[in-house]
Amino acid sequence: MQKQIITILGPGSWGTALAQVLDDNGHEVRLWGHLSEQVQEINQEHTNQRYFKDVRLSETIQAYTDLKQALTNTDAILFVVPTKVTRLVAQQVTQVLNHPVRVLHASKGLEPNSHQRLSTILEEEIPEHLRSDIIVVSGPSHAEEAIVRDITLITAASKDLEQARYAQELFSNAYFRLYSNTDVIGVETAGALKNIIAVGAGILAGLGYGDNAKAAIITRGLAEITRLGVRMGADPLTYSGLSGVGDLIVTGTSKHSRNWRAGYALGQGQDLESIEASMGMVIEGLSTTRAAYELAQELGVYMPITQGIYQVIYENRPIKEAIQDMMTNEFKEENEWS
Amino acid sequence: MQKQIITILGPGSWGTALAQVLDDNGHEVRLWGHLSEQVQEINQEHTNQRYFKDVRLSETIQAYTDLKQALTNTDAILFVVPTKVTRLVAQQVTQVLNHPVRVLHASKGLEPNSHQRLSTILEEEIPEHLRSDIIVVSGPSHAEEAIVRDITLITAASKDLEQARYAQELFSNAYFRLYSNTDVIGVETAGALKNIIAVGAGILAGLGYGDNAKAAIITRGLAEITRLGVRMGADPLTYSGLSGVGDLIVTGTSKHSRNWRAGYALGQGQDLESIEASMGMVIEGLSTTRAAYELAQELGVYMPITQGIYQVIYENRPIKEAIQDMMTNEFKEENEWS
Repeated sequence: MQKQIITILGPGSWGTALAQVLDDNGHEVRLWGHLSEQVQEINQEHTNQRYFKDVRLSETIQAYTDLKQALTNTDAILFVVPTKVTRLVAQQVTQVLNHPVRVLHASKGLEPNSHQRLSTILEEEIPEHLRSDIIVVSGPSHAEEAIVRDITLITAASKDLEQARYAQELFSNAYFRLYSNTDVIGVETAGALKNIIAVGAGILAGLGYGDNAKAAIITRGLAEITRLGVRMGADPLTYSGLSGVGDLIVTGTSKHSRNWRAGYALGQGQDLESIEASMGMVIEGLSTTRAAYELAQELGVYMPITQGIYQVIYENRPIKEAIQDMMTNEFKEENEWS
Repeated sequence: MQKQIITILGPGSWGTALAQVLDDNGHEVRLWGHLSEQVQEINQEHTNQRYFKDVRLSETIQAYTDLKQALTNTDAILFVVPTKVTRLVAQQVTQVLNHPVRVLHASKGLEPNSHQRLSTILEEEIPEHLRSDIIVVSGPSHAEEAIVRDITLITAASKDLEQARYAQELFSNAYFRLYSNTDVIGVETAGALKNIIAVGAGILAGLGYGDNAKAAIITRGLAEITRLGVRMGADPLTYSGLSGVGDLIVTGTSKHSRNWRAGYALGQGQDLESIEASMGMVIEGLSTTRAAYELAQELGVYMPITQGIYQVIYENRPIKEAIQDMMTNEFKEENEWS
């Protein structure tokens, strides 16, 4: 593959880790952010201390605060900004972009309120003549591990298989490997909806339940987010892939996941306000639970775990009561998708 | 459901835990074993100390050494014996059984050498007029958790959905819940093949890799055992269920799994002989790796992880070399099933 110029929007932990992967592969990497101190730190100290205490970045990674400059002659734009500002940043990009580029994103979640998938937002906001089919990069990936070149496997999904293959070639190396997929809906909804299950797994752990219960909520949670995804047009098998099962293994069983920790605190009896206050950041799994609950109602999809978590979070239902409900529901077939 | 008489063959940890579940549900439970001391302990002390140090069993659970007596007027026989003696015990049952019964099994693995599924063995050895379609009970279940009535969800599979539903009703209660499935091949192969991945996940942990690598090997391992299973006639979605993904979460991420621990020791540089000697018991995942490797060769199924583990275990291939191979294989689509 020829050397590419890649502009990464969002120098957070994952954006920075992906910058290092692409730099390792010999591409020209530009990191765009709006905090001038952070940009300066990356350019002068070659660190991003807010996210990585002991990591030195390649000196060839350049950071920018000027979006137009960061986009000049670029081959591809990779969005890794928070879901709530994806639309705004896409609008800013469209204002200054004057040549066609590949468009990728590596964020997980749905747009707040609209519940829209991020690739839909990018399609809406960036005119077709300025972009490729959107490529979604998703999978089980602690940035802290990828940036020290620990083995990491993720998925690249695009409606157009050739675009997914471009991402495969762009990112893959001896420690980082991508699998292609054309099921964009599946990959994006899996990445977002799995956070509900991470909250649920945290709740059970907080209550003191063990491995059997953890496996149970993850597996049956997977079954119901698959049901919702299939109803939205996804391939059910995508949910067994890296963006579904894979990511669930990392977030649904890990104390490092914000969603899991929020669930754990709920299970231990803390109330929602104090949890959100003490964590000091958005817990995506909570708003995603609401979004999925509303979607499930609208589309008539059976999601007992999501409903249980929703009731616990937003309707103050006692957790034990919600669990008892799930355990005594009518008997089900395992592979039921409707 | 009417009170049933259930004869459980094999008072190991899982057989004993299932006995307690069935006793809790009001059924007459008979545990058959060949060690008279153990049988006596269960009948007199109401304990099974070899497996559960601090658990007192219900006094209504009766243990037997006499198979004929244990089978008198029984409604159902549940096999929970080691895979290598399943055929022998089925032959013994056939010799003394004189009325038709439901036949269930809750063992995981394939018969050594023949690589046959256990339900096939039971079908072969127990004449059709003496039995129902075989019911397979499988899923993520540490016996130590089930016996203290921690939440546990598993699958009941039978070609005949009515039989699976019988098992659902038989076992389910407020802490134990079953899902029915008609994909016997899928449930049995998932339960056996997942042990390969548990070994692989252990190897990576032993080498010091983190969560990303763990999620990677579990997800891509799942993809390749699914490929093999589909080739053998399974529904791919069964592998996302309790007997596949669910069980992998418990065994592939747990230090309590023998298979994981064997892999961990391999990753740390120990050799196979000393691992097997120090563990003092059969490590099912090792023989299953050989079985799956041979099956994959025979059926032409692409299983790079199984092949890598096979080479490491049986051909002394350096682990790092096998990993490098997997990371630099040609690019793949995620949902490829051939």
